[in-house]
Amino acid sequence: MLVYIAGSGAMGCRFGYQISKTNNDVILLDNWEDHINAIKENGLVVTGDVEETVKLPIMKPTEATQEADLIILFTKAMQLPQMLQDIKGIIGKETKVLCLLNGLGHEDVIRQYIPEHNILMGVTVWTAGLEGPGRAHLQGVGALNLQSMDPNNQDAGHQVADLLNKANLNATYDENVVPNIWRKACVNGTMNSTCALLDCTIGELFASEDGLKMVKEIIHEFVIVGQAEGVELNEEEITQYVMDTSVKAAHHYPSMHQDLVQNHRLTEIDFINGAVNTKGEKLGINTPYCRMITELVHAKEAVLNIQ
Amino acid sequence: MLVYIAGSGAMGCRFGYQISKTNNDVILLDNWEDHINAIKENGLVVTGDVEETVKLPIMKPTEATQEADLIILFTKAMQLPQMLQDIKGIIGKETKVLCLLNGLGHEDVIRQYIPEHNILMGVTVWTAGLEGPGRAHLQGVGALNLQSMDPNNQDAGHQVADLLNKANLNATYDENVVPNIWRKACVNGTMNSTCALLDCTIGELFASEDGLKMVKEIIHEFVIVGQAEGVELNEEEITQYVMDTSVKAAHHYPSMHQDLVQNHRLTEIDFINGAVNTKGEKLGINTPYCRMITELVHAKEAVLNIQ
Repeated sequence: MLVYIAGSGAMGCRFGYQISKTNNDVILLDNWEDHINAIKENGLVVTGDVEETVKLPIMKPTEATQEADLIILFTKAMQLPQMLQDIKGIIGKETKVLCLLNGLGHEDVIRQYIPEHNILMGVTVWTAGLEGPGRAHLQGVGALNLQSMDPNNQDAGHQVADLLNKANLNATYDENVVPNIWRKACVNGTMNSTCALLDCTIGELFASEDGLKMVKEIIHEFVIVGQAEGVELNEEEITQYVMDTSVKAAHHYPSMHQDLVQNHRLTEIDFINGAVNTKGEKLGINTPYCRMITELVHAKEAVLNIQ
Repeated sequence: MLVYIAGSGAMGCRFGYQISKTNNDVILLDNWEDHINAIKENGLVVTGDVEETVKLPIMKPTEATQEADLIILFTKAMQLPQMLQDIKGIIGKETKVLCLLNGLGHEDVIRQYIPEHNILMGVTVWTAGLEGPGRAHLQGVGALNLQSMDPNNQDAGHQVADLLNKANLNATYDENVVPNIWRKACVNGTMNSTCALLDCTIGELFASEDGLKMVKEIIHEFVIVGQAEGVELNEEEITQYVMDTSVKAAHHYPSMHQDLVQNHRLTEIDFINGAVNTKGEKLGINTPYCRMITELVHAKEAVLNIQ
């Protein structure tokens, strides 16, 4: 099969690298010039649990021409519409598209470009880092869950899960993946935005009594909005999951801190807390904590003149 | 008359200095050792619109023994109970106490120490700065409004207003001072906490679309809680006042930014947004923006290990 990785940052490189070790062809797509040039010239340099340099084709999304069997979406949330626009030419009638982006609401964007029966939604806890152009740092073990959006096309989902498992990506076909997507979004929605605003680690946030109050209020808003959308969410279970994650990740600054504070990049807030608020507004549910934290993050982007 | 200034920071020094020019005795009270020693040794050095050094008695609150005719309260909000405790010895049956602190709810604290008929509540737009121990910088013109809490003791309020006017402090006896106190608290509640969290100037906050959304939501919460307490507040008028103030003060970092970000000191958040949330809870009114901003500021205090 011909597999495109649409968005070849750290996670895209991990998936591309691991899939390239199987009996499938992989093409990386990205828009970062230095990254493309480094991989074209020197191959992808993998460090961490393995040390290896692999030759992998990489190009800009608009340069791809061969029809894809599978496209794995790994862009930043706000880059998704442009990516789908740019890769129209490689999307055939049988092309499956697996979305592994963080956040909520991506299926609504994807449906504008891909027929429902070819869409697979997923969520992963694999991690990866970029050490520079063409250099991916891969450490630790993860897993992913995925599901066909069209219940009549579960076969497609199982085939993709098989392919990913051959690449040791620990994929599970999940007949109810949406709660898992929400649960991960809730982890991000409690830690990312708050740690970015407070310029602190996850452990520092959760060590503060008032930080915990906010975390619980945000979880509550995610749960009531998700439930109103028909997603099976258990507030107690999610709270426990968030707390467990906070302990494991205590010393980390979450990705939104890296984006907003460290690198002055636009954040994915609209697809995390912002998405819950937008969905809440449509459903007539008030979600002031998600709304205010979204406004604070956007105000901070404006103060930093990030565009 | 013998006038004590209870809390002789920048504003206390201004009032003490100006009143000392009249036919009244002034004693400054403060707990900052360097400040006390500087004023004892060299007098109070005034710079800005006037350049002068004046001899003024200063001591710790617990050292004051002469019964006061008037005490002007100018502490930080959270220092008020301790100050009132410390100066019990100078509070006589006829001692008037004028509260000019920022924020809401101080009258409840003062009532525990002072009989209602001797309490005067006020609000001032005078400003001042401390350049170091014993050095006050006074620039610009201000005014203040005050009112007797006990409507049967308006004479006391008028007498104090007269005294302050002799010191050119532009005092007005205001038969409805409470809305003015709330209006100033609302200015602080929209700008101080948000600019402290976003580490930005007032102008930067108000230039951001999302910043403005928050400002309007916070104003709304102040107004509905104040109105429920019986305070005459006009949302449109207050919004206009906040907007006008934001233009005049565009280049400034508000005082809570100075406390939290610049000097890592505890903030007065519990007496501004926090007070509105506490009052709202008692009244059954939900004020999530005031609540969350209070939690964020306290979480930041915890992250910075401020105690």
